[in-house]
Amino acid sequence: MLPVKIAGLGWYLPERRVSNAELAEQWGIDPDWIEKASGVRERRYATFETAAGMGAEAARRALADAGMDLGEIEVIIGASTGPQQAIPCTAALVQRELGAPEGRSACFDVNATCLSFLFALHAAAHLITGGAYRNVLIYSSEINTRSLNPKEPQSAALFGDAAAAAVITQAGVGEASAIWHTALETYSSGAEATEIIGGGTLHHPNDPRTTPEMNLFHMDGLAIFRMAAALSEPFLDRFLATLKWERAEVDAVVPHQASRHVIEQFTRRLGFREDQVVWALAERGNCVGASLPLTLAEAVARKRIKRGDRILLAGTGAGLTLGAMALTF
Amino acid sequence: MLPVKIAGLGWYLPERRVSNAELAEQWGIDPDWIEKASGVRERRYATFETAAGMGAEAARRALADAGMDLGEIEVIIGASTGPQQAIPCTAALVQRELGAPEGRSACFDVNATCLSFLFALHAAAHLITGGAYRNVLIYSSEINTRSLNPKEPQSAALFGDAAAAAVITQAGVGEASAIWHTALETYSSGAEATEIIGGGTLHHPNDPRTTPEMNLFHMDGLAIFRMAAALSEPFLDRFLATLKWERAEVDAVVPHQASRHVIEQFTRRLGFREDQVVWALAERGNCVGASLPLTLAEAVARKRIKRGDRILLAGTGAGLTLGAMALTF
Repeated sequence: MLPVKIAGLGWYLPERRVSNAELAEQWGIDPDWIEKASGVRERRYATFETAAGMGAEAARRALADAGMDLGEIEVIIGASTGPQQAIPCTAALVQRELGAPEGRSACFDVNATCLSFLFALHAAAHLITGGAYRNVLIYSSEINTRSLNPKEPQSAALFGDAAAAAVITQAGVGEASAIWHTALETYSSGAEATEIIGGGTLHHPNDPRTTPEMNLFHMDGLAIFRMAAALSEPFLDRFLATLKWERAEVDAVVPHQASRHVIEQFTRRLGFREDQVVWALAERGNCVGASLPLTLAEAVARKRIKRGDRILLAGTGAGLTLGAMALTF
Repeated sequence: MLPVKIAGLGWYLPERRVSNAELAEQWGIDPDWIEKASGVRERRYATFETAAGMGAEAARRALADAGMDLGEIEVIIGASTGPQQAIPCTAALVQRELGAPEGRSACFDVNATCLSFLFALHAAAHLITGGAYRNVLIYSSEINTRSLNPKEPQSAALFGDAAAAAVITQAGVGEASAIWHTALETYSSGAEATEIIGGGTLHHPNDPRTTPEMNLFHMDGLAIFRMAAALSEPFLDRFLATLKWERAEVDAVVPHQASRHVIEQFTRRLGFREDQVVWALAERGNCVGASLPLTLAEAVARKRIKRGDRILLAGTGAGLTLGAMALTF
């Protein structure tokens, strides 16, 4: 048990709303098919916004929610898939956007695509309980819609942009907040099922052999769904057996908002009741690394999740990685 | 004090050696000027090698050095600046390259450019001492020479490619190995002095407004040197005051191999003797995130650093971030 607390949460949504009708017209497909296939009715696309600007705005709101000053933050972890630019890490750019005191915080990025927030929170919790830091800011700011492939509308329709942030602190004496158990497992035989092969050293943007297609997101949705579905049940059984929680005792399951089918799989096949599972997919889409903290933050803001609740954060990320974390909020 | 141990180290150098004469001919400059200005005589450039392949080879050697099987590794942290591809994280690709058992390890990337290894080691040490994991593999695999700007030969001449890896475990009973103190501070007013503004969401590779120049490394070497020099002295004074080590007690200072001037600054102005400071710059160049673990690994292999030695890992990274870690090897 790690006596840490999510002391504040915040988020930022890009201004531009993108409807299924707009995508359907653009891609020449049926808008009803989009909602049926993806479970998404609307998503946001960043236009004038930058990843650091969105991350900083979400962070400001999380700090206000925690009642904390910028100067109290000792670490800024960027928990996002794509950086704003190749160098420096985006967390340093967020420190600058925030106007956070120079030298007061250490900035670094963590990337595990859709599970970036879980990995960052797991590391932050241990840095805090080990005494390295008191207050850690984690944000996830994702602008992945620039990498969508219109030739793959079934995956492209899923995604939206968003940022969310959390302030993590030691739990105070008498506070119930805690992280009880975390499990993260990578099955790299699934690496090719979710990828952008460009954007790195293998297909450098200046390499004349790099094609625009290489810089676009490719997902073999059916393959990754089947692989995740087969692995998730034993993964969750092991997780809950170690945790010693019954499924029925969980107040809120916050799944990564991967797609309608993935969340439904989480609800029915994995043995949770529909009212336990928090959805944000219809209005937000799959916001990659920002989905988990955004779904959590919005659920707390509308009081669906309250202090003392037993929460399960869970999902899959490209890799393929499975992740779950049980906490008392 | 964190009772953790660097149980094994390994590295991989790309086959192709690049001399100053070759760069001088290519860029139309004086080869003697390159060595004088940078302190680098030769560096390696990756050709057929991939970031994941180099990382996996360094990891295999680190595992052999630690006498550990692949199946014992529970986490693979990629501590590198550039990913191999945008999705998934490179650590997952290294799990696949290694043939490490599926699901046995959790894979994620950490990026703080030249200080990526320090951030990853700091987090890994707390994950281990907090009981989350027993054995963590950290690798740094950098192929940054594809982003060098020949119009900035003074910085372009500095860089080389390399990979290095470390296996981190709990220190055994009676073992002296420990991490004594870590300090990491980001001063983001220096962000613009070391950057690649492309390669992310701000200037997406498919955006027609993205120019090839945006995907190349830009460094205002003088500005960053002045800023780092002014900050390093008080930073190190605070670090050593907390640590309660005298400078003379340090067996080996392993600085990030940024440039000749930066390492000399570390030696003279910061009050270390020349024989305390470990150099790898002349034959390796600045290998970005791989420099710190590579310099450490090579120094251990040639017995410059031995078990029980007091080591200081220190350097600066884009951000601008200052970092230092004191450990008993």
